[in-house]
Amino acid sequence: MNVTVRGCTQHYRTVAFDRARNAVLLIEQRLLPHEFKVVATKNFRETAGAIRDMIVRGAPAIAATAAYGLAQGALVFRGQDLRKFSRHIEAVYQTLKAARPTAVDPVNAMNGVRAVMRTGRTVEEQQALALAAAEEFASDDVRHCEGIGRHGARLIRSGMKILTHCNAGWLACVDIGTATGPMYAAQAQGKKFHVFCDETRPRSQGATLTAWELAQQGISHQVIADNAAGHLMQRGEIDLVIVGSDRTLGRTGEVANKIGTYPKAVLAKRHGIPFYVAIPLSTIDWNLKRGFDIPIEERHESEVLGAWGAIANPQSAIRNPQLNRRIYVRVANPASGARNPGFDVTPPDLITGIITPAGIFKPQELWPQRRKLGFTD
Amino acid sequence: MNVTVRGCTQHYRTVAFDRARNAVLLIEQRLLPHEFKVVATKNFRETAGAIRDMIVRGAPAIAATAAYGLAQGALVFRGQDLRKFSRHIEAVYQTLKAARPTAVDPVNAMNGVRAVMRTGRTVEEQQALALAAAEEFASDDVRHCEGIGRHGARLIRSGMKILTHCNAGWLACVDIGTATGPMYAAQAQGKKFHVFCDETRPRSQGATLTAWELAQQGISHQVIADNAAGHLMQRGEIDLVIVGSDRTLGRTGEVANKIGTYPKAVLAKRHGIPFYVAIPLSTIDWNLKRGFDIPIEERHESEVLGAWGAIANPQSAIRNPQLNRRIYVRVANPASGARNPGFDVTPPDLITGIITPAGIFKPQELWPQRRKLGFTD
Repeated sequence: MNVTVRGCTQHYRTVAFDRARNAVLLIEQRLLPHEFKVVATKNFRETAGAIRDMIVRGAPAIAATAAYGLAQGALVFRGQDLRKFSRHIEAVYQTLKAARPTAVDPVNAMNGVRAVMRTGRTVEEQQALALAAAEEFASDDVRHCEGIGRHGARLIRSGMKILTHCNAGWLACVDIGTATGPMYAAQAQGKKFHVFCDETRPRSQGATLTAWELAQQGISHQVIADNAAGHLMQRGEIDLVIVGSDRTLGRTGEVANKIGTYPKAVLAKRHGIPFYVAIPLSTIDWNLKRGFDIPIEERHESEVLGAWGAIANPQSAIRNPQLNRRIYVRVANPASGARNPGFDVTPPDLITGIITPAGIFKPQELWPQRRKLGFTD
Repeated sequence: MNVTVRGCTQHYRTVAFDRARNAVLLIEQRLLPHEFKVVATKNFRETAGAIRDMIVRGAPAIAATAAYGLAQGALVFRGQDLRKFSRHIEAVYQTLKAARPTAVDPVNAMNGVRAVMRTGRTVEEQQALALAAAEEFASDDVRHCEGIGRHGARLIRSGMKILTHCNAGWLACVDIGTATGPMYAAQAQGKKFHVFCDETRPRSQGATLTAWELAQQGISHQVIADNAAGHLMQRGEIDLVIVGSDRTLGRTGEVANKIGTYPKAVLAKRHGIPFYVAIPLSTIDWNLKRGFDIPIEERHESEVLGAWGAIANPQSAIRNPQLNRRIYVRVANPASGARNPGFDVTPPDLITGIITPAGIFKPQELWPQRRKLGFTD
């Protein structure tokens, strides 16, 4: 999407590849929203480091990063020996895989790249195929988000107020985003609407990343405390909810997403407000039989007990770029601990529809439509 | 309640009076949870300043502070002239009233003190009566919380996990607290239970004040993000919810309380978890006919866009007292704004019961029982 830095507007992907320098280009997300910077990883080890250290985050974005990282690793190999090349590729693969050991998307993406690559007969052919496959993976992700946007934009009418939670935006993908896809598509159609971004404690992705994204695209928005949506719904100030998902169960229609999604779905149901989940098909888990079995990561309590931000005057936004470095402050009582579940699971009875690149489905329709949605036994 | 400072445990009221120094003693709540300090206001102007600057907050606590402030102002008057004394008292009253212009409790408390005071025939008698009435007001508040505790403790069984929101604790009252009253009473009965404190963004009163209170009293507790209770309820980890209220409508049973209370009530209903509201009778508004008409304060957006805390290492609580001063950090995108409603209204169908000093009532019982609950035409 477009980013404006010092008056100059330019298009960026969250993840891209620079062939001339054999570098993966990543938006340094840990500096956002206070600073915009693109970093170039010089080799696959740096690329793995960028995934591990969360310079890049979001399942589709780290998948594309790993795909490019594999190609980047392939391209530095010198020689003609396919067996040596294969051993080298295996080392690259394992390095990238170890960067976020519980994430499944980078592994799937790299498996795809490797399968294409292996159809090459020489090292040189395999190197070219690896990069082509990584580029194809990234472009597919963009097409998926475009598809989500096209279908989802039909749900948005001018004058609407839309609630979203966390960041399922272009910063979590290669471009466009899942939950934000319909918003950007509706904006392109000339529709005017307003977005409430749940700040999304404890990591504040809504206040930092989603708010930054929407500001860059010129979409009217406000940050709200996660506590505020109930009141706004009572007063008729929310017309539509769109969120992303980390894993959606194809068999049951249950949706795992950032902690705090489920309460919003319960509130939306009580108020008769449509609640949609936007996902690429790769998010659908066709195997797991019940949402209760989705492992819910318990994260470090420091996230709940404090906050990351830039020292500022509360009466004004930050004007001094020198002050933009983010620091951690302890908010809570120093002698107290915290529970910090990272995700929750929303049952299908609360979900109006699931927006996919293949169309919008009721959660209960995923399983009957599984062939159309790419399920293979 | 008891506070332990450097190994020494002592009982404190949130608000007390030092006759020898003619000073109001207040726990400096803006320093909590990182530092415990009692300040003594030297005159009624300083007392008004302490209310205005939120050294003391919470409706019962600022009411007691204003009552003491009026007595404090009365006691400095020198002379026998009752008309001059009366003019002096009016100036004191107006100064204290202006400290938090929208709060009704300080005004009611001062009206009560003044009515008692005026039964005195001399300046000296009126001065003595003012202080006696202020002390009586403070002790009444403590008795009310004791009553809430006695009735509410019946709801708590050993092994329970209790959710609370914001701070309706002893720091908001003279002592004991409303929502915390049943917890402290149950603890005194030897019951063992665990409390989840919603951090209560944007002002984080749960993470700072409630967590500090519970830690001081040795009650097992953890802070959670406001987003987390839904997941914990799904997993059967919450058995009971107790919150306070800023205004409860006697005619309808609707409860206004800190933003984020209503979503918790909706979740509790869905999961069949009892949801109780603990209030002194002074919180009941017998006039207003519908909750929709309760004015909902829209607070400054900086609260949502950032956080107050002490610079710390995320991996450890604060060890260095020099670092305990709280600073403001901007969390959200600097170019984004926020909505910040301060309260929401929970309808009676979501409320299991209202715990008062006079017993526990269904919200629909308040109006039929209004004579018993102190309503006068």
